[in-house]
Amino acid sequence: MQTRGILTVISGFAGTGKGTVVKGIMEKYEDYALSVSMTTRSPRPGEKDGESYFFVSREEFEKNIAENGFIEYAEYVGNYYGTPKAYVEKKLDEGKNVILEIEIQGAMNVKKLFPDAVLIFIMPPGADELERRLSGRGTETAEVIKKRMDRAALESEGIEDYDYIAVNDNVDDCVEAVNGIIRASRLKPAFNTSFIEKVRNDLKEKARRN
Amino acid sequence: MQTRGILTVISGFAGTGKGTVVKGIMEKYEDYALSVSMTTRSPRPGEKDGESYFFVSREEFEKNIAENGFIEYAEYVGNYYGTPKAYVEKKLDEGKNVILEIEIQGAMNVKKLFPDAVLIFIMPPGADELERRLSGRGTETAEVIKKRMDRAALESEGIEDYDYIAVNDNVDDCVEAVNGIIRASRLKPAFNTSFIEKVRNDLKEKARRN
Repeated sequence: MQTRGILTVISGFAGTGKGTVVKGIMEKYEDYALSVSMTTRSPRPGEKDGESYFFVSREEFEKNIAENGFIEYAEYVGNYYGTPKAYVEKKLDEGKNVILEIEIQGAMNVKKLFPDAVLIFIMPPGADELERRLSGRGTETAEVIKKRMDRAALESEGIEDYDYIAVNDNVDDCVEAVNGIIRASRLKPAFNTSFIEKVRNDLKEKARRN
Repeated sequence: MQTRGILTVISGFAGTGKGTVVKGIMEKYEDYALSVSMTTRSPRPGEKDGESYFFVSREEFEKNIAENGFIEYAEYVGNYYGTPKAYVEKKLDEGKNVILEIEIQGAMNVKKLFPDAVLIFIMPPGADELERRLSGRGTETAEVIKKRMDRAALESEGIEDYDYIAVNDNVDDCVEAVNGIIRASRLKPAFNTSFIEKVRNDLKEKARRN
């Protein structure tokens, strides 16, 4: 009925398992694409250009900024990181639902640039469970866990700015919930203008002819 | 996660098969309820009070109007027909997604009263197919078919005022599309306020305690 994909923003507290959910969607469905960020940092062993990141020079990155080529970008520890607009547009035009896994502030910026973007906040089943998952990794210090829990408390203020929430209790169910949201979103009139126009014009043409 | 259902408005051109789609949803899923209209006309043979309609006296109907008890109502050929608000509210509170099968003008009125209502326009695959379906019934005169096609051309102006479209090419697919839209809608933050509040309060409580 239509071909352009849905720009999908996925956010969630650290430890909610949103990365696993995104991976699950990418593996299960063919019409999704994960946005690949651009960076000026050097590739680490095993990282491939165009997969982990698009690796570019500082000069090229700044040219891209000047040309308004990023959906959002930021500088961390002397290196730029950004979401290239051209790549996202290309994938959307190919009919792919493009997933951006970003934090709240970035999500709000995306919504301004792409009002049709669908913003999904992945929720833990509860605060206790979030704490359990953060602790369960076994790799973080108590201090880091506390920092993440505090950050979650802060970030929780922004949940209502998202279009949807999806609870990651069971990964498969959460993958299905997110996919269901995107399937439904593709049925909004704004994504089906040419089909609606065709039916309307044909109906009017018939009304005129008779 | 939440219990209140979604108020679902279904509209579509005559001949699109929206009645069949609604019937399919009601048969397949338990958490839907079809809004039962109230009328002052007499029951026809086989019609049961509370199923086909709520049959009431003119006096009772007008009392209901005076008490702002209808979502929408109209008078046809000397009889009142209306959608009782109390019934809809009761079913929504029971967690049922309540389906109202009404035309465009009524749909817009519902949206004003219930901003969270989800409006779905059932589309035919095309204008030719709509004409075929209207003719295929074999029960209508050419004049009636022309009248319905003309009305469809007029009504097509309002499609973009709906939240979603669903194409009724295959009934089962259309039932699934509508159900998918409603499932996704239940994931909007507005329908999950108590869950979100609980997670947020628990996170803040943990942040305070530590």
